[in-house]
Amino acid sequence: MKLQLLLTGDELLTGDVVDTNSCWLADRLKEQGININRKTTVGDDLTTLVNELTNLSQQCDVLIVNGGLGPTIDDLTAEALSLASGQPLKQHPQAVAHLEQWFQKRTIELNSANLKQALLPADVNLIHNPTGTAPGFSSIINDCLIICTPGVPSELKRMYDDSIADTLNILQQGDCYSTERMLVFGIGEAELQQLISDNLPDWPPALNLGFRAQMPTLELKVSGSDPALKQVWLDKLKQLLGDNIVGPGDSNLALEVIKQLSQQGKTVATAESCTGGMIGAQITSNAGSSAAYSHGFITYSNQAKQDMLAVSADTLEQYGAVSEQVVQEMARGALSVSGSDLAVAVSGVAGPDGGSDDKPVGTVWIAWGNSEKIKTKKLFLPASRYYFQNIICSVCLDLIRRELIGSEQRPNYFNRYQAK
Amino acid sequence: MKLQLLLTGDELLTGDVVDTNSCWLADRLKEQGININRKTTVGDDLTTLVNELTNLSQQCDVLIVNGGLGPTIDDLTAEALSLASGQPLKQHPQAVAHLEQWFQKRTIELNSANLKQALLPADVNLIHNPTGTAPGFSSIINDCLIICTPGVPSELKRMYDDSIADTLNILQQGDCYSTERMLVFGIGEAELQQLISDNLPDWPPALNLGFRAQMPTLELKVSGSDPALKQVWLDKLKQLLGDNIVGPGDSNLALEVIKQLSQQGKTVATAESCTGGMIGAQITSNAGSSAAYSHGFITYSNQAKQDMLAVSADTLEQYGAVSEQVVQEMARGALSVSGSDLAVAVSGVAGPDGGSDDKPVGTVWIAWGNSEKIKTKKLFLPASRYYFQNIICSVCLDLIRRELIGSEQRPNYFNRYQAK
Repeated sequence: MKLQLLLTGDELLTGDVVDTNSCWLADRLKEQGININRKTTVGDDLTTLVNELTNLSQQCDVLIVNGGLGPTIDDLTAEALSLASGQPLKQHPQAVAHLEQWFQKRTIELNSANLKQALLPADVNLIHNPTGTAPGFSSIINDCLIICTPGVPSELKRMYDDSIADTLNILQQGDCYSTERMLVFGIGEAELQQLISDNLPDWPPALNLGFRAQMPTLELKVSGSDPALKQVWLDKLKQLLGDNIVGPGDSNLALEVIKQLSQQGKTVATAESCTGGMIGAQITSNAGSSAAYSHGFITYSNQAKQDMLAVSADTLEQYGAVSEQVVQEMARGALSVSGSDLAVAVSGVAGPDGGSDDKPVGTVWIAWGNSEKIKTKKLFLPASRYYFQNIICSVCLDLIRRELIGSEQRPNYFNRYQAK
Repeated sequence: MKLQLLLTGDELLTGDVVDTNSCWLADRLKEQGININRKTTVGDDLTTLVNELTNLSQQCDVLIVNGGLGPTIDDLTAEALSLASGQPLKQHPQAVAHLEQWFQKRTIELNSANLKQALLPADVNLIHNPTGTAPGFSSIINDCLIICTPGVPSELKRMYDDSIADTLNILQQGDCYSTERMLVFGIGEAELQQLISDNLPDWPPALNLGFRAQMPTLELKVSGSDPALKQVWLDKLKQLLGDNIVGPGDSNLALEVIKQLSQQGKTVATAESCTGGMIGAQITSNAGSSAAYSHGFITYSNQAKQDMLAVSADTLEQYGAVSEQVVQEMARGALSVSGSDLAVAVSGVAGPDGGSDDKPVGTVWIAWGNSEKIKTKKLFLPASRYYFQNIICSVCLDLIRRELIGSEQRPNYFNRYQAK
């Protein structure tokens, strides 16, 4: 089935409204195995609408029109469909009855602007709108089923779920297309593409492989209609990527850390300099984080590192704040003050200022581990402050995650952001 | 000028991504007096893209193509433009040099997937991408200027502001339409609209007044072609809104706090429970924050409040962690350990669990001030965890900001989120 969307409304072209209806519709349609082939967005202009209806109805089997059903003069969908289909406008008694009921229930008088919503092309099928005044309607032009829906998101959603989904299901007659999503970290989009091309060159064309960068993580999607085939190649993909697979597509690094900690009955403390609280904020953005996290130290200055984590003034003087020795002492201090089982500590030069020849902007030291063993790593990531902080925060969470799952795989960012 | 958008990417049709780029572009274009005539959204399919480029280029003067410039096999814009325009693909030395520089700076090896981003139609003009690997490019087909831009929002925005805006301005022949943007906090969009309607009813039609909610702050925009008229009404608007105007449109609450602190030679410390490090992260996301911020305490558990801020066990037991007494002790502890001039402390029930009859989800206590005087406020904001944390974080920063500028204006959120 070839399905397109026609989204109407000046507000969608002026930047005043972000279109979320089409995203919602796409999600629902996908569940029924229907892909949206194309979306067209135009303003409230009668000639434009008539042209779009005429042209688009020749390009697809179903056209969902969203918007333009309201009572005001810029609501033109019914008039446009009337002109495009050659059906005169007439008052539909069923639509008038719906309006009368609606207004009576709210003890408001029905005015002529509202009555306009019952003035529709003569031969349309009405679609009940339980949550608003404007009925939806459908009609066939050029062998294309045109379904006109309200722009108000709540009205669209209810109308879709109540009526339109069934209509489309009957048309569709059940394909079982579905998508598996995975959250990936530790390998970039281009590297991932290369890895798959190199190692899985026979990837079957019936399975759609997609990536989505959700900086700094990556979403990997495998879609197809054959569940057995999908499982075989998902397994190969999972083996290929190993511990770079963080969890399901709707998870996040901090949540996977919390899950592991909770399962193991452990807690982690954070000691942050250059990330300034971001690791703590990402952990605590997840409900239930209090089971795994109690203490976070934002030690942005040298003095704070001494005051809060007992980093020695000598170490700071001798090696500088961005050094292996300092992050080690930060991690040890965090473990000792908090009594947590694990700690991660980070100190770096986020820039844009503050770099030196010896430690240029982008230099960062990370320490992570428990009271028995603290590991350290130096990385170099000369990006904007925003990217530096976000990526380093994710790296810190990922290192804790890998520690917790006992991973021995070397994450790719060790190469990618290798320090000289 | 007739301008259209062609948005490409499977993710825009599958419901995985809400398109915000076109909204942002519409906003910027409007400032230059250019309206978007139509938007078309299609997936990553070569034939479709070639057809769209061919058809749309016959319908408008400028076509901005967004997406499909990346290194993976589903990035097809260059290939499609090559086929639609009859220009063979060739490696552009300038684009290769950009890629080489980019990867060298990050000490990563350039692979063939990445090099693909330099393989572009022979006669295009390159558009520099300062924040990403893929260069933009433009070409004229059917008398239509086609401008190909990256789908990553940050890359698109920078490229537009750096290069494309000028190109369009030249085409548009320099109207002096310009926009003043202000960041507003402490008053909602509907309240703001009402305030302006009530107090500035003669607002001149020649000045375009716009709002944009950038949760939790609000951007207020005044656009027009008459600088003198604009100044008069900007002054009236500024007087009306008073201290609710945080700063220029590209600022943020934390940055305005840092500016004030730096000017006054002061520092602030943060003591966070329910925001878990977010206030610290927002402060330190701004370059130069180290002059104003040194110590942050993420005291997510009661034990942490005692360990790190010397909150007394008795106070915690008697009043509970979400109480006026505890946030006062947290603020005092933060002042004392850090030696900072000011402190802000926050403790609340972010939910979804953890509420009680006495302190339901959404209850929060904030304390802020200096060693001489600490103010406190209880608020009630029963929103999702995400909104709760974000809004409360902004409120904390705003309270410090108002303290620093000596504001006596009562912020609207004291009413809006009034606790029972």
